[in-house]
Amino acid sequence: MHGILDIPADLAPVSDLLTESLARVEKRFDDQLASDLPAVSRLVTHVERYRGKMLRPALAILSSLAARADAKPRVTDDVITLAAVCEMVHMATLVHDDVLDEADTRRRGETLNRLYGNEAAVILGDYLIASAFHLCSQLDDQSVALEIGRVSTVLCGGELLQLHNRERWSIDEATYFEVLERKTGSLIAAAARLGAHVAGATTDASERLGRFGLRLGVAFQIQDDLLDLLGDERTVGKSVGKDVQKGKLTYPLIHHLAHAEPILRGETLVLLESIGRRAEISPDEAGQLVGAVRSTGSIAAARAMAESLVAEAVKTLGALPPSPARSLLELMGGAVVNRAY
Amino acid sequence: MHGILDIPADLAPVSDLLTESLARVEKRFDDQLASDLPAVSRLVTHVERYRGKMLRPALAILSSLAARADAKPRVTDDVITLAAVCEMVHMATLVHDDVLDEADTRRRGETLNRLYGNEAAVILGDYLIASAFHLCSQLDDQSVALEIGRVSTVLCGGELLQLHNRERWSIDEATYFEVLERKTGSLIAAAARLGAHVAGATTDASERLGRFGLRLGVAFQIQDDLLDLLGDERTVGKSVGKDVQKGKLTYPLIHHLAHAEPILRGETLVLLESIGRRAEISPDEAGQLVGAVRSTGSIAAARAMAESLVAEAVKTLGALPPSPARSLLELMGGAVVNRAY
Repeated sequence: MHGILDIPADLAPVSDLLTESLARVEKRFDDQLASDLPAVSRLVTHVERYRGKMLRPALAILSSLAARADAKPRVTDDVITLAAVCEMVHMATLVHDDVLDEADTRRRGETLNRLYGNEAAVILGDYLIASAFHLCSQLDDQSVALEIGRVSTVLCGGELLQLHNRERWSIDEATYFEVLERKTGSLIAAAARLGAHVAGATTDASERLGRFGLRLGVAFQIQDDLLDLLGDERTVGKSVGKDVQKGKLTYPLIHHLAHAEPILRGETLVLLESIGRRAEISPDEAGQLVGAVRSTGSIAAARAMAESLVAEAVKTLGALPPSPARSLLELMGGAVVNRAY
Repeated sequence: MHGILDIPADLAPVSDLLTESLARVEKRFDDQLASDLPAVSRLVTHVERYRGKMLRPALAILSSLAARADAKPRVTDDVITLAAVCEMVHMATLVHDDVLDEADTRRRGETLNRLYGNEAAVILGDYLIASAFHLCSQLDDQSVALEIGRVSTVLCGGELLQLHNRERWSIDEATYFEVLERKTGSLIAAAARLGAHVAGATTDASERLGRFGLRLGVAFQIQDDLLDLLGDERTVGKSVGKDVQKGKLTYPLIHHLAHAEPILRGETLVLLESIGRRAEISPDEAGQLVGAVRSTGSIAAARAMAESLVAEAVKTLGALPPSPARSLLELMGGAVVNRAY
């Protein structure tokens, strides 16, 4: 994530420390997944290529530093383990999502399900979840495994709630946010909160960083919604309008349907019904949908919502003592809503 | 499992204790899965109907008693928790297996995937795994969560190894047993070993019960192979020849292909290829396959293998002091190879 940031000179040391730490996370991740079975390791090698923004590990690491601004900046082995655990749980959800979405590409490569079939992908997702819990149980502090277990059930609950509301276009914002907080926010919040916790932070600092992560996570997902609607395939590495086709709730659409005049609302619903039934969305349809959503100010409203969540998140950090790690977290907040991928 | 046993009068007290304890396991299981989201709880309620033989909980409970024959028979809360955890991991594999096998029925009811779709079933399986780890991390003894995490990765490895060898009919027995020990034996062994461990057994007694569980688990799976080939749908509640159609290795077939004369072997391979490509297997084909497998003595060989594994398993228990729990475990061993469901 921080690879795309413009890092001011005074933050270069903490940014370098983050880069080194993320390399340690990658190694912990790969070591944990190593298997004596070639049938397993060829799939694991493929999954390692999925590695993307490493948002959760970066948050865990920076939170551990920001919460202990009193101490010499040092990323402990426990923080690295926790960061790898969060990334592994996240990766499991990506692998299973790709099966459910029948996705062919991820991060410009072919998906596991495309290359090896749905069966291998479902079982490999299970292998990733099991490996995450196995790794987590190796920490001395058992409360972390308990919390990762709990958060994983919350995350699955969010996915089931989303599925349950599929194609219910007129859903309210409250339900949308409940899905997001559970599905995306919960694990991102846990990465930040537990990163601070295992570094020995006070409960207050850990909880504060958790709230930062929760808001950032929700803002991140709203930005994802916008990219799904507006982004182009070159930049995001996935096709446009996928969420709409799968009947998934996105903030701009919910806002649009709640604010459009009855006739326009009816037209949009007809368009959504029609798109949902086919495998492809034509450029004309995409144009019509974006035009409609824009006409009710819903693109701008989604941007404003994401920005206000990030502003709140950054404000939450205000009570922590100033530190390079805190500054880098604030920069990351801004990057979340400005990213084009 | 013990519901179908003929219990001698002197074992009635331990059998009653087992029945009561299994009811506690069911309650722990249901309480752990309870969710405030209706979208989750309707699926969980459906899964609770899958409950079958409760082999893993029964082994955990009886092992905890057999390993502590010195103490007054008492099933602690920790043993109940462990038993529920093992059943939950097992249930997750059933739910995901049904998706992969495109199965329509389980235990005479419709499968989750059939009723609610593959997406709900995949996510619910994940919810079960996460809930199992969450419950497991609530035990004071952290080594249990570590072991359940490890065993779950072994189990997934076994499933991937099986998938990798699908339709490789000429596979050797060693690979077949490796799949079985990982996929089925590992969790059954863990239920027995950890049941003893959390009850405060010595390492020797725990390991011994683990070896008993491993052998019993493999024997159980060979009996499953036989039922798939010979059983009728009324009795086992699933269609005959499913394994063959999915290209899964079964002991009678591996034995047959290793022992048949070249011409018969060729005929069987042609038949297997042909069955594997279609959705249905005709009674004629089933008859031809069973006839061929029987002609090389492979049905008898599978029975003998399962019986010898159970005999070895029972022998392993010999070093434990005699107790009603040990006797009931021995009876269960016999039931595994004589069951018709």
